[in-house]
Amino acid sequence: MSSLFYNVQHSPIGAFASFTLGFRGAKGGLGIQQGRPADEPVYIGLESVDDPNRFEALPFFDRDGNDESTRYVDEDSAAEPEQDDHHLSAPPGVSIDFFDEKAIERELTMARDTWTAGDLTFRVISPRAPLPDPEATSPDHDALKLATCPAVIVEIEVDNTRCDRARRMFFGFSGNDPYSALRQVDDPAHADLRGLAQTSLKGIFSDQPEVITGQAFALEAVLRSVNPGNRRFTLGPVGAALADTPAGQKATYRFAVAFYVDGVVTSGQDATYFYSRYFDRLESVARYALEHAADYRQHADRADEHLAKATHLNDDQRWQLAHAVHSYYGSTEFLDLGRAAALSPADRTPCWVVNEGEYRMMNTFDLTVDMLFYELQQHPWTVRNVLDRFIDRYAYHDTLHVPGGENIHPGGISFTHDQGITNHFTPVGMSSYELADLHGCFSHMSCEQLTNFVCCVGVYLEHTHDTDWLTRHTGLLEDCLVSLCNRDHPDPAQRNGIMGLDSSRTGSGSEITTYDSLDTSLGQARNNVYLAVKSWASYLLLEHLLTTAKRPQAAQAARAQAQRTADTLVSSADAQGRLPAVLFEGHDAPIIPAIEGIVFPYLAGRRDALDPNGPYAALVAVLGKHIDAALQPGVCLFDDGGWKLSSTSINSWLSKIYLCQYVYREILGKTWNDAGHASDRAHVVWLQHPRLSYWAWSDQMHSGEARGSRYYPRGVTAALWLTESSATTI
Amino acid sequence: MSSLFYNVQHSPIGAFASFTLGFRGAKGGLGIQQGRPADEPVYIGLESVDDPNRFEALPFFDRDGNDESTRYVDEDSAAEPEQDDHHLSAPPGVSIDFFDEKAIERELTMARDTWTAGDLTFRVISPRAPLPDPEATSPDHDALKLATCPAVIVEIEVDNTRCDRARRMFFGFSGNDPYSALRQVDDPAHADLRGLAQTSLKGIFSDQPEVITGQAFALEAVLRSVNPGNRRFTLGPVGAALADTPAGQKATYRFAVAFYVDGVVTSGQDATYFYSRYFDRLESVARYALEHAADYRQHADRADEHLAKATHLNDDQRWQLAHAVHSYYGSTEFLDLGRAAALSPADRTPCWVVNEGEYRMMNTFDLTVDMLFYELQQHPWTVRNVLDRFIDRYAYHDTLHVPGGENIHPGGISFTHDQGITNHFTPVGMSSYELADLHGCFSHMSCEQLTNFVCCVGVYLEHTHDTDWLTRHTGLLEDCLVSLCNRDHPDPAQRNGIMGLDSSRTGSGSEITTYDSLDTSLGQARNNVYLAVKSWASYLLLEHLLTTAKRPQAAQAARAQAQRTADTLVSSADAQGRLPAVLFEGHDAPIIPAIEGIVFPYLAGRRDALDPNGPYAALVAVLGKHIDAALQPGVCLFDDGGWKLSSTSINSWLSKIYLCQYVYREILGKTWNDAGHASDRAHVVWLQHPRLSYWAWSDQMHSGEARGSRYYPRGVTAALWLTESSATTI
Repeated sequence: MSSLFYNVQHSPIGAFASFTLGFRGAKGGLGIQQGRPADEPVYIGLESVDDPNRFEALPFFDRDGNDESTRYVDEDSAAEPEQDDHHLSAPPGVSIDFFDEKAIERELTMARDTWTAGDLTFRVISPRAPLPDPEATSPDHDALKLATCPAVIVEIEVDNTRCDRARRMFFGFSGNDPYSALRQVDDPAHADLRGLAQTSLKGIFSDQPEVITGQAFALEAVLRSVNPGNRRFTLGPVGAALADTPAGQKATYRFAVAFYVDGVVTSGQDATYFYSRYFDRLESVARYALEHAADYRQHADRADEHLAKATHLNDDQRWQLAHAVHSYYGSTEFLDLGRAAALSPADRTPCWVVNEGEYRMMNTFDLTVDMLFYELQQHPWTVRNVLDRFIDRYAYHDTLHVPGGENIHPGGISFTHDQGITNHFTPVGMSSYELADLHGCFSHMSCEQLTNFVCCVGVYLEHTHDTDWLTRHTGLLEDCLVSLCNRDHPDPAQRNGIMGLDSSRTGSGSEITTYDSLDTSLGQARNNVYLAVKSWASYLLLEHLLTTAKRPQAAQAARAQAQRTADTLVSSADAQGRLPAVLFEGHDAPIIPAIEGIVFPYLAGRRDALDPNGPYAALVAVLGKHIDAALQPGVCLFDDGGWKLSSTSINSWLSKIYLCQYVYREILGKTWNDAGHASDRAHVVWLQHPRLSYWAWSDQMHSGEARGSRYYPRGVTAALWLTESSATTI
Repeated sequence: MSSLFYNVQHSPIGAFASFTLGFRGAKGGLGIQQGRPADEPVYIGLESVDDPNRFEALPFFDRDGNDESTRYVDEDSAAEPEQDDHHLSAPPGVSIDFFDEKAIERELTMARDTWTAGDLTFRVISPRAPLPDPEATSPDHDALKLATCPAVIVEIEVDNTRCDRARRMFFGFSGNDPYSALRQVDDPAHADLRGLAQTSLKGIFSDQPEVITGQAFALEAVLRSVNPGNRRFTLGPVGAALADTPAGQKATYRFAVAFYVDGVVTSGQDATYFYSRYFDRLESVARYALEHAADYRQHADRADEHLAKATHLNDDQRWQLAHAVHSYYGSTEFLDLGRAAALSPADRTPCWVVNEGEYRMMNTFDLTVDMLFYELQQHPWTVRNVLDRFIDRYAYHDTLHVPGGENIHPGGISFTHDQGITNHFTPVGMSSYELADLHGCFSHMSCEQLTNFVCCVGVYLEHTHDTDWLTRHTGLLEDCLVSLCNRDHPDPAQRNGIMGLDSSRTGSGSEITTYDSLDTSLGQARNNVYLAVKSWASYLLLEHLLTTAKRPQAAQAARAQAQRTADTLVSSADAQGRLPAVLFEGHDAPIIPAIEGIVFPYLAGRRDALDPNGPYAALVAVLGKHIDAALQPGVCLFDDGGWKLSSTSINSWLSKIYLCQYVYREILGKTWNDAGHASDRAHVVWLQHPRLSYWAWSDQMHSGEARGSRYYPRGVTAALWLTESSATTI
C-alpha cells in the first residue's frame, strides 16, 4: 500500500505555490516560493461512525508533536488546575486515529487527486483554465483572472447515510511561515468567508454557512471544544474548519486553498505577481475561487478527459504524465515586471517564469527547451515570452578557444543558463549558475543554449505561425547561425558540423551540456553526440527559418552545415551502427540521448529530413540502430527495466527518458513491447519510492532513487506522448 | 569567558527586526518579525598576521555545515575533475579558525556592542535617534526618517600597522528566509552600493569602493577565490563582503545591516511599515543609513553617555538596562494603518506596536504598563498611540459574577489583554489570548487591564500635561471608575476596595493577573494583594485626574475607594506588617509585587499619598515592613541572592524585579546594601546563562533559567533606575 503515499503538488498556474499532499506525516502543506514541501501538518478527517468522540484522519500530520501550551505555563508549579487543561489540549475522551491504510484509496488524474476513506472523500482540484496571451492586442482579462487566481479547490464529501447522528468532518493545517501566526478569518469586509490563514499569505477558506472554524493548541480541542467560544484562540498553532453532516444525509464542502504575496517579490528587477492585477488580498482570491468553483471543475473535467482519452497510453504512462504536470505548475511563476504601486496595469510587462524545482533557478534554458512541447499545447505565448526575455536581457557574445588555447577565435551570440534564482533576476547577460575555469558542473553551456534557442524558435514558429516574430528576429537568427558555425571550427574549410571550440566564458575550462551532473559521456559539450544531433537539428531548423524569412544564402549555409554534421555522425558509427558518446575521443559508451535531438526537426517542419529515404537516410538509419543497441540489458537498461541514459552512469533523468521514448516510438517507429511496458512500470516505482516520493515528481534518478532535480517541473516532456499515433502535430 | 557569548538584539526602531549576535554558532543573524533569533551563520573575521591563507573569525557560524554543492553534483560518478573542486568549496591551503576566545573582548553599552579580537574590532551601532510624534500638527519628517530607517550600522576597524602586507577582512552571512536566496547587490540604480541580500528583505551593504563581495558554497572560496569572477555565484548560500587593508595602515569599514518588508504586512486590519513612507526598497534604506552613519554615531554617543553618567548605578545594573533596551527595540513595530497603494501618506494612521518577544502578541497591555516609563523617557507619544487604540478598538463592557455565581451584576468598561498576534490584529474587542471558563493561564485579566489603563493614563498625563487628551476622555475615566468600583462589590455599602467579582468574559472561570504563569499567589486576580495595591493606585490617580477634569463628585468617590483599599490592606497585615499574597483566602505567603503598584502614585502626581506622615501612612508603613520581611533568605530570595517574586514559586520575572527594586530604593527609601548588589550580580548571571542567553534578554526565570518570556521587551522597567536619586520626575 505504500505506493499510495507519495506527495503531489496541487498548484495554481503561475503563483509559485503548491498545496502539496500525499506523503505520510507533516510533509505537505501550503508552500510558497519554496523548492520543497512546506512540511506542514494537514488535518483531514471525519468523526467515527461508532463513537462521536473518536475521529479518523488521513495520515498527514505527526501525532507526537510538541504541546505549544508548555511555552506559556509554568510546568514546575501546580498553578494550572487540572480541570482547565481540556481547554488547551485534548478534552477528556476525545481521540484521533489515522484511518486504516488498507481502507484508503487514491486516484490521481491530470487535474484531480482524490482520497477516499470510509465515508469521507477528499479531493483536490487543480486550476487548469486556459491561460490566454496577456500580450495580445485585447487580452481576455476574464479568462486571465480565472486562469491565474492563486488558489486550488478542495471538495470534501461526507456520506452520512448509514449513520443516525450528525457527524463532524474537519480540514485544517498548521502554517510554517516564520513571519506570521495562524489566524481565523474574520475580515468584516468578507463576513461570509470563514477559514484559517497565516496573515495574508496563505489559507483555507469556505463560503458555506454550516462551516465553522477553530484554533487551539491541539486538534482535539478544536474538534470538541468544551466552550465553543474558546475555539477563537489565536495563540493556537492548530487550526481547522469543521462541519456537521446531518444524520442520514450526504454533504459536500468546498474550500479554496489560497495564496497571496503582496508587493514587490523580486530583486534585480522589480516585479509583482501577475495575479495582483486582479486581486488585492488573500480573501479576494478565496472569494473568487469559491464563486468560480464550477468553472474550475469544468476545466478540470476537460483536462482529465483529455488524458483519459489517450487510450494508446498505459496506466503507468498516464499516471506519470499527470504527476509531472502537477509538479510543473508548482514551479510556474507569472509576474509583472514593474513596481505595482507606481504603475498602471497597462505599464506592466508580463513575465513568465518556470522555476527549477528544488534549485529554484528561473527559466533555466535547458529546461525551457524540454517543457516547450507542453507549453505549446497549453499556452504557447509563454514560450515566446521566455524567448523574448532571453533576447532582451540574457543574450551575450563571446569569443572561443580550442582546448588549451587562447580565446582568440570569433564566437557569436549565445544565451545564459538561466535568468536568475529564487526571485532574484541576475544582471544583464549573467546567470546564477555559470562559473569560469571549470570542466564539469557549473561551467558554461554556450553552445547548447544556442541550440536550445534555435530549437525553441523553430518549434514555436511551426506551432504558432507567428510570422511577425520571425520578421522581427531574422537578423538574430542569422547571428545564431554564424555563432553556431564558429563553434565548429575557425576555418570554414575544416568544419565537420560538430562543436569543437569552447566559449571564452569558460576561461581556461570547457563547456558542458545540460546533463551537467553526469559523467563525461553526457557532461562534456565538445564533440558530444547528444549535442551533435541537436546541432544538426538546429542547422535544419535554421535552414527552414531562413528560407521562410527569405535569406537564401544563409539558409544554404545552414543546409551545408547540417549535411556536414550528418556526414560526421554517420562516419562515427561503428559497424553495428552504434554512435560513441563523445566523438573522436574514445568515449565509445552508448547513450540514449543520441536520438533526443531529432524531436526538433520532427516538430518544426523538417520531417523531410527524417524520411528513411530522404537526404539524411543514413543518419536516420544509424540512429535507429544505435538505440536498438543501447536499449539492451546491461547497456542502457537498469536491472528493473528502467532506462539508463548513459551506459556509464547510474544517474538517469526521467524527463529526458520521456522525451527519448517519444522519439523512439513516434519518430523512429519502434514498437512498445514488453520491455517498454516494463520500463514504464519501473519509472513509476522510482517515483513512488517509499522515502523519496516526498519530493513529488523528481528528475535525476540514481539507480531509481531521486537524488537531484527533485520537486521538478521538467517531466512534462511526457506531454509529447499525447500526440503519438493519433496526432501528427503537437 | 562564557559570559562573553550571549545574544544581543541590535534593532532599528519600529522595524520588528533584529541583527542578533553574540551566542556561539549559527544562532544570530538578520531576523524579521520573528520571536527568536534567525539562526543564521554570521561571518566576521580577518586574515591572520602570520599566514595569508589563514583567517581568524568570531565564532558565529558552525564549521561543520553541509556542503550545498553535493545537491548538484553526482557524487557517485567521477565526472567532476578534482582540479575544479576549489571553485566550489575550499581552495587548497585556505583555512578559517575561530579566534582564541581568551583573546576576545566585548563591551555592551546602551547603543553599541563592540567586539575586539587581535587587530579586528567589530562594532554594532543601534539607531537611537529621537522618535518625534508623527501625529503632531507638523511632524518632523526628517527626524522621523532618521529614527525609523530600518537599518543598524556596523563598523569594522582593522589595525594593520604591525603587518607588512595587506590583510583581508570579511563580513557576511547566510540568509534563512525560506522564500528567497542570497544575492549580491548589483542594482544598476544603486551602482555604488555593494553587499549581500536576500531578495529585498534583508542584507548587508557598504558604499566604500574598496569593499568587494562574493558568494560561494564555502566561505573559503569567497575569501580566496581562484577566479575572482567566480565570486559571483548566485547558487552559493555563503556570502561575504571583503576588503584589504594596506600594509602598515588602519582602516574602518562601515556597513548598513538593512531590513525591508514591502506591501501590506498585517491581517485583521491592513497596515504597512511606517518606514515605507520614506523608503521604497532595501537599497534605499541602506544608502540612507550609510549616508547618515555620522548621525547615528552621534545619537549613539548621546545614549551611551546618558547611561555612563548614571554613576549611582553599578556595572551590573547598567549592563542589564542596556541589554533590556536592545531587546525592547527588537520587538518594536511602527506601522501605518491603511493600504499603501491606495492611500497618500496624509491618509495613513501611525500605529505603534510592541510585540511580546517570543510570543509576538501585539501591545499586550500588561507589558505596556511596565514599558510605559521607558517610553515616556524616549517617545511619550507612543504611549498615547497605544492607549488610543485600546480605546478605539480594544475596549469592551462586561457584567460580573461572584465566585460560582451567575453573571448578573453590573460591570463596566475594560480592555483586552492584547491587540493581536504576529501581525494579525484580532477583531474589535477581542484579544489573541483570553479564553473563557479558565482559572489559570489564558483566562481574562479584565480588572488588571482596567487598572493598567488608568495607571498608564495617569503617568502619561503627568508626564506630558496633554490636557486635550484628558478633556476628550474625561467621560471614559468616569466609566473606568464605575467599572473598577463595580468589580469590588455589587453593593456599594459592602465595598472594601478590593476586587471581589470576576468578569462575565471568564464564563464560569475567574480572572488572572499578568503573572499568568505563576501559582495562585500571583496568578489569581480576586483578592490579590498585588492587584489590590494597583487598585489603590488607580483610585488615587482617578481622584487626581477627575479633580483636574473638574469632576469633584467622581473624584470624591475615587478617594473614598482609595481609603477603603488602604484600610483593607492595612487590616490584612499580620503583626510584623506582612501582607498575604491573597487576602482573606489563606494564601499568606509573601510576594514582592505587593509593593509594585505604588510606582504609579509616585510618578503620577500623588506623592502626597506616599508621605510617611500623610493620609496613607499606615499603608506605606505596612509595605515597608512587608518588603523587609519578604527579602529574606528562604522567603523571597533565591540561594544566589536573586529576587524571588513569590515565596511559593520558582518562577521570577526580571522586568518586575527591576520595577520593584526601583520602588524599594526610590519610593520606600531602602538602602542598596550588599544583598542588593548580590541580587544584581545574580540577575546578570541568569541573563548570561551558557545555554539560555541564546534568547538575549528574557523575563521569566525559573530558578535563574530563562524558561518563558524570552527575547522579550519588558526589561526596560530598569530605565526607572536612571531617574533615581538624581531626578525627581521621569
